[in-house]
Order: sequence, then C-alpha cells, then structure tokens
Amino acid sequence: IINAEKSEFNEDQAACGKLCIRRCEFGPEEDPEWLTLCPEEFLTGHYWALFDGHGGPAAAILAANTLHSCLRRQLEAIGEGMVATQPPMHLSGRCVCPSDPQFVEEKGIRTEDLVIGALESAFQECDEVIGRELEAAGQVGGCTALVAVSLKGKLYVANAGDSRAILVRRDEVRPLSSEFTPESERQRIQQLAFVYPELLADEFTRLEFPRRLKGDDLGQKVLFRDHYMSGWSYKCVEKSDLKYPLIHGQGRQARLLGTLAVSRGLGDHQLRVLDTNIQLKPFLLSVPQVTVLDLDQLELQEEDVVVMATDGLWDVLSNEQVARLVRSFLPGNREDPHRFSELAQMLIHSTQGKDGNPTEEGQVSYDDVSVFVIPLYNQSQGSSGH
Amino acid sequence: IINAEKSEFNEDQAACGKLCIRRCEFGPEEDPEWLTLCPEEFLTGHYWALFDGHGGPAAAILAANTLHSCLRRQLEAIGEGMVATQPPMHLSGRCVCPSDPQFVEEKGIRTEDLVIGALESAFQECDEVIGRELEAAGQVGGCTALVAVSLKGKLYVANAGDSRAILVRRDEVRPLSSEFTPESERQRIQQLAFVYPELLADEFTRLEFPRRLKGDDLGQKVLFRDHYMSGWSYKCVEKSDLKYPLIHGQGRQARLLGTLAVSRGLGDHQLRVLDTNIQLKPFLLSVPQVTVLDLDQLELQEEDVVVMATDGLWDVLSNEQVARLVRSFLPGNREDPHRFSELAQMLIHSTQGKDGNPTEEGQVSYDDVSVFVIPLYNQSQGSSGH
Repeated sequence: IINAEKSEFNEDQAACGKLCIRRCEFGPEEDPEWLTLCPEEFLTGHYWALFDGHGGPAAAILAANTLHSCLRRQLEAIGEGMVATQPPMHLSGRCVCPSDPQFVEEKGIRTEDLVIGALESAFQECDEVIGRELEAAGQVGGCTALVAVSLKGKLYVANAGDSRAILVRRDEVRPLSSEFTPESERQRIQQLAFVYPELLADEFTRLEFPRRLKGDDLGQKVLFRDHYMSGWSYKCVEKSDLKYPLIHGQGRQARLLGTLAVSRGLGDHQLRVLDTNIQLKPFLLSVPQVTVLDLDQLELQEEDVVVMATDGLWDVLSNEQVARLVRSFLPGNREDPHRFSELAQMLIHSTQGKDGNPTEEGQVSYDDVSVFVIPLYNQSQGSSGH
Repeated sequence: IINAEKSEFNEDQAACGKLCIRRCEFGPEEDPEWLTLCPEEFLTGHYWALFDGHGGPAAAILAANTLHSCLRRQLEAIGEGMVATQPPMHLSGRCVCPSDPQFVEEKGIRTEDLVIGALESAFQECDEVIGRELEAAGQVGGCTALVAVSLKGKLYVANAGDSRAILVRRDEVRPLSSEFTPESERQRIQQLAFVYPELLADEFTRLEFPRRLKGDDLGQKVLFRDHYMSGWSYKCVEKSDLKYPLIHGQGRQARLLGTLAVSRGLGDHQLRVLDTNIQLKPFLLSVPQVTVLDLDQLELQEEDVVVMATDGLWDVLSNEQVARLVRSFLPGNREDPHRFSELAQMLIHSTQGKDGNPTEEGQVSYDDVSVFVIPLYNQSQGSSGH
C-alpha cells in the first residue's frame, strides 16, 4: 500500500490471513437457533481484502478489522452443508420430503452457491456494523471492498466498488471482477429514482443527457436516456431537465449526485449531498458481485497469479500492461522467496513514475494504491485440507 | 407457422416487409413539435417479427398489425440523426454549445444507439396501443415479441419474451437474443415485490425455495434466495414462507405468480391471477433487449442465415441441432430460389416428428411453431440505399 498525495491519511486499507472455519453443531429440533462451535478447525481457507476509503479512512479501517469475522461466522453457520457434495435442503440434514435432494439438484444449487451466499451476507452484515460503529464514534466515511477467498480448490472474488482483480497466466489475462460506478450502474440508479422520486428532493433530474443542460436548450429536442433505455432518444427540454443530473460526468469524473465516484461499497450511512438533506445511501449497494474460479480445472503453472488492486493502479495501467509487468518480472526471480511481494511493490512503484520506471503512457497516480499478488500454484492443494 | 395441438386458434403471429422511412422536416424553432414528412423515401430497411400469444391470439394479431408502424414513426422522428456519422446533440441540428459534438463523442453515442432507442420506444408504444385496443374490444391476452430489423448494414434483434434468434454460419453459431422468463429475471421480479409488497396481496411469498414449503418445514432452516442474492443461504421457515411462491417451478414449467411463463412481452394489461385481484402487468416489461450485428464486418457467405423462431422450436431443438439442419439443407439446394423458406418449413416439420424426420431426441412440440430463415448475404448492400 502506498499513500499518495490525494489524502493526508491513507484511505486504502488491506487485510489478509488464514480463514479458520470451525465445525458447527446444531441443537435439538425444538430449538433451531441453538448452535455450538467445536473448538477444532474444520476447514481452512485464505482471505485477502482491499478497502478503498473515501471521506476519511474510518470505514476502510473498520472493514479491514471486521469483514473476515463476518465471513467466518456466515461460513460456520452453513456447517456441514459446505462439505457435502450437494447442499442439503434442510441445514439439520433431516429430510422432510424424500425428493428434497432432487429439488436441490433441479435448481442446480451447488456448494459454491452457499459460499457466494455467505459472501453476500457477510458484506451486508459488515455494512451494518460499520454503520453502527461510525455513528457511535461520531465518524463518517465509506469504502469499496474487494475480497478474494480461496476455499476447497476454488477462488471466490467478491467485489463492491471500483477495485479490480485479474488472473494473469502465461497466455491469458482474465478479469475476475467488474467495477460498480455511477456509469456502470446507471439503469439501476435511475430506476430507483423513478420509483422513489422523493430521494432527489426536486434538486436533481433522473434523466441522462450528453452534458448538463442550460437555458438555451429549453424547447429544443436533445439526446437523452431514461432508466429503461440502453439506447438513446430525443426529448423536448423542459425546465425540470435543467436540474443537476443524478449521474454526471464521464469516466473517472462521473459522480453520483455530484458526490460519489462509486455505486457499491460499505459505510456512507451518514453521507449527504453538500448543503442538502439528500442521502446517498439509498443509491448504494453493499452486496458484492461474486465470481468463482475453479483452481482444480486450471492446470496451474508456477507463475500464474491473481493481481488485486485499488483503482489507483488501474487508473494508470491497463490489464494488459499489468500482465506484461508480471510476465517480465517473475521468470527472472525464480529463486527469490519474496518475489510475489516484490512484484506487488514494483507494480505500485510503476504508478509513481519513479525508479526510471514510468508507466507506458507516462501517467502518474496521485491516488492511494494497494496491490496484492496472489500466487495460485499451491492454492488448490494447500487449502483443500479438511 | 404451424398451429399445433395446444390451442384451438393459432397464437403465433408473424409480420415481415420493407420498412420505408420518409424524410422528416422540422418546423421553426418556436414550434419544436411541428414536423412534416416528405412523401419520398429516405431510408429503406427490412423488418421481420414473431409474436407468440397467450390467453388467445388477440394481442399477437394486434402486435403483428401495429409494431412496424410504431417503429417506422419512431425512426422517422429521429430524422437526419440517423444518417449522420454521429447523432447531433440537438435534433434541429442547431448547435447551442460549440463543444456539443465532443460531449456526444465522449458519451460514445453512435447512430445505432438511436435505432436501439427507437426499438425500445416502439415496443412500449405498441404495448400501449394493445392495452387500449383490447380494452375497447373487451378482449384479453398478451404475446412475446421478437423483431429483426436490417438497416444501413446492421441487423438489430429486439427481444421481449422467450422466442430466440441465432446466427448460423459455416463455422459459427451465435445467439442473437436471450430469453426473458420468470427464472432469468428472478432478481428483477423479486426486487419489485420487495419494493411494492402490496403487489402480492399477502397471497404469495417473494422468496425462492428449492420447492414449495409445507407445514413440516416450519422452524427448519432451509435453502432460500432473496432479491439481492445470486448465491443461496439458509433461513428459519416462518408461516409466511408457506405461501405460494412468486416464481414457482423449473425450466419450461416455471411460472410467474402461478400464471405466466414469460416475464417480458406486450399486452396482458387485464391479466389477473385466477380468482384473485392480483395483477401480472406490474411484473412484466414491454421493453426489449436489443443486440446489434454489424453485417459489413462479417465477410458474409452465401449460406449465412439468421434463424428466428418461437419457443415451440427451441423446446425440442438446440441451437447446435438447428445449425446442423441448416448446414445439411442449404448447400444441396443452391439452385432452388425458395430454399430459405423451404428450410423454414423443414425446421417446423422436424418439430412434429413427421416425414420420417423426428428430432434427434425424438421430442415433439405440441406448441405453435413459427420460423423465419433470413439470408444475410445481400442484406448489407441491399439495405444501405439512401
């Protein structure tokens, strides 16, 4: 992690470690909430997480200290379901209807869907914790969250925000996440403003135009898009169209309600549009999108890695440029036991235009930058222990 | 089109023809609604449409008679914008702000986005017409809509429902549409029920379970999914979870509110759940998803075709099976000027298990079946006339 010039305190935070999941025992049928955890370990995974804070580092620090515990709890609550070849319809294992396994099979529900569900629930639980803690401490702020979990031969990548994870192999570069920004989630955000117009308090227009409209445009037919449109059409400009747009600006400059550059993440419960009472939170989702990589099917090579980084890296380097740096660095440093962390450092330095190693476009990042380089070679065997 | 045993009247309807778009002239600036159409043609395209009705043929017949006019009107309203290399910010062509072309460029708005927008608007307009006409005539029903439009070297495929279009070439089979069913749109539908619980009138549960729950499941922890989840989790069954599910059944049997097998389409304004006052329409979208095929970039061969068909065909034949039938039929019939319509007939017959030509799995379709086979070879040149 490097703290750049944009903020005084480092708003990027990270966490990683072993994820130790204990065996869960369920109580008698009369008390389905009864549950004990055996002290011994049951499943071991690995966990990496990046949090890119805004409005101060508080939410990112809380997330780095909390999300892995939320996830462990959620995974422990699934219990034996996670090691079964097929998730049981009833967590107790009791079969109410003899064809229950067939119903589960027909729905195509796999063990990995339980891990995806656990990640989705853990992000939401962590968001609630952050909301309570920040309010109690009189603090504010929010953060994006990008999490990778290696468990039983699969790598799960859960993303809420504009960080990114990619898989880099000798002959393949594959994105493992997509970014959630006001632009990429335009239709969801416009739709919400359509359903609940009071969220805009008559200060914003839900419609998208190529630029902010002004008095001269009144009565003209101009290009626009509403929530149900992926194409563009023309509409006659009315006075209400001159309001500030719900989503405004292009690319890195795009903002939700003139305020936020991301549309998913944790925190921001108190965030309001400057000098108004308009809340951002209803437009933000804490639920991540989860992608699954089946490591056992990949025929992994020693230099296959996942690169996770906050937007500070991806603002100046493309996926292909990062892949080139990975491929040029690793083979020459095979004897170095620290080569993966050194590669992460090198990637960060290459965003700073230092060490005679400027980026190919000569761009420099003034944002905080965080990078994990995760070697995959031993993940599939190493983490499958029972 | 073949009428099978499922319904007395043919619920599949089709339309095709030349799409003649006239030049549009705009009035003085004081009256932006003023608009005249010059009598001479301005642009020519081709139009194919399939409508699969339910609850009677009325909506499908209306759609077959109406949608092309809605689309022509929408396209004519764009006027010169459609032949410009870049759509103008103002339809009048007047430049209010000198950098308007740059704003349009930065948003990446292309001429094809105007056609997509016109298709989206035309579907909605047609839906409103059908609603008014059916109400006035005391009739009911709805239909899916799959439309292909060839215009200026591009093929636009707009789909609302469970019909399908695929591109078949010598060495490629490419889906040009995806199906909209209660299963494929689960999250959108559950989300709406979450926002407006009154739409379910306490008769249905929004949650998804592997099967309908019963008294024995009460108090057990069972697999479930809510609107924000793509994974699965467990919840303790309460009494309200025993209600009939908003989306129930698997695959072809999946139904929205126990009633409809599709989640997008036209009509159904009056449709209610049997013996209740619960309306289906709020859960249905009339807006299509549009995909664009750039014919000029395809290096088309003489036997490259698009196959459009209602679900009656795809229920018994896979994309690959249809492609095999196309490739085995066309080369041997090169001299036959009617070979494309004969191929369409052959595809329909092969769903009926007749002519010693049963489907490979021996399946037979009892649904109405409609097929268009569209040869692409001359489309790119033929339709680009100004």
